[in-house]
Amino acid sequence: MTRLLLAAALVGGLATALPAAAQFQKPEDAVKYRQSAMTLIAHHFGGLAAMAQGKVPYDAKAAAFNANIVATLAHLPFTAFGEGTDMDLHTKAKAAIWKDPAKFKAAQDKLFAAVTKLDAAAKAGTLDALKPAVGATGEACKGCHDDFRSK
Amino acid sequence: MTRLLLAAALVGGLATALPAAAQFQKPEDAVKYRQSAMTLIAHHFGGLAAMAQGKVPYDAKAAAFNANIVATLAHLPFTAFGEGTDMDLHTKAKAAIWKDPAKFKAAQDKLFAAVTKLDAAAKAGTLDALKPAVGATGEACKGCHDDFRSK
Repeated sequence: MTRLLLAAALVGGLATALPAAAQFQKPEDAVKYRQSAMTLIAHHFGGLAAMAQGKVPYDAKAAAFNANIVATLAHLPFTAFGEGTDMDLHTKAKAAIWKDPAKFKAAQDKLFAAVTKLDAAAKAGTLDALKPAVGATGEACKGCHDDFRSK
Repeated sequence: MTRLLLAAALVGGLATALPAAAQFQKPEDAVKYRQSAMTLIAHHFGGLAAMAQGKVPYDAKAAAFNANIVATLAHLPFTAFGEGTDMDLHTKAKAAIWKDPAKFKAAQDKLFAAVTKLDAAAKAGTLDALKPAVGATGEACKGCHDDFRSK
């Protein structure tokens, strides 16, 4: 438990900001937690991507709502990659997460910067502002998934 | 799809605020979405309950963070109880959700009021402020689960 917490703090670099978020009873709980966060992020980012791609009409209020959810939740999964959460747990997480924590951290930081801009862009209230921020966030998602998530 | 959306709007009463959040490709997606939201809510509310019960030390910053997550996410599951999401989907949702939407809506409203107070109480920064708000939120959770979720 303590090792799990410490590892989560080291990997996530968020121990100061999110102490309680990194406490899990079992490794399985951490996996379920981070997968749940990713499910919600994917859903709400999907709503933004659909607008950016013209698949659904632009709706400033919905965009601001979705971007706020994405920006709020983007930090959560990374508190849940502690030691022991890498094996036999129906996870797609690659070993690279634990083998190259600096690279994993850099990928997180890229995402955090992107979602902060996404949140601001959505609040700006125009599709022109939203589009590049959605693109940059999508790139951050894809870059991390390419390196750290199995297909 | 349209029926699913309309039902979600009627049940959740959030169509105006959350248009994009209620769009799901398949009923299974809605179930996975609402269960994911509940997983995160349970985790972060658990952190608050542990503080309120003295099981972990009070930490004002962590409390404010957890309460913000709970207040933000509390609305999400209720956009995902549309028609067709009630059967054969590994859901614990009871038929009462669709048979008595007014009662289900009242249970939601009780939760929304509780989490708004919880968020404010956590921001107040004292354990004395937090405790009753955690208790009221826990009651709202339990009341809805007793009536609308199978054991």
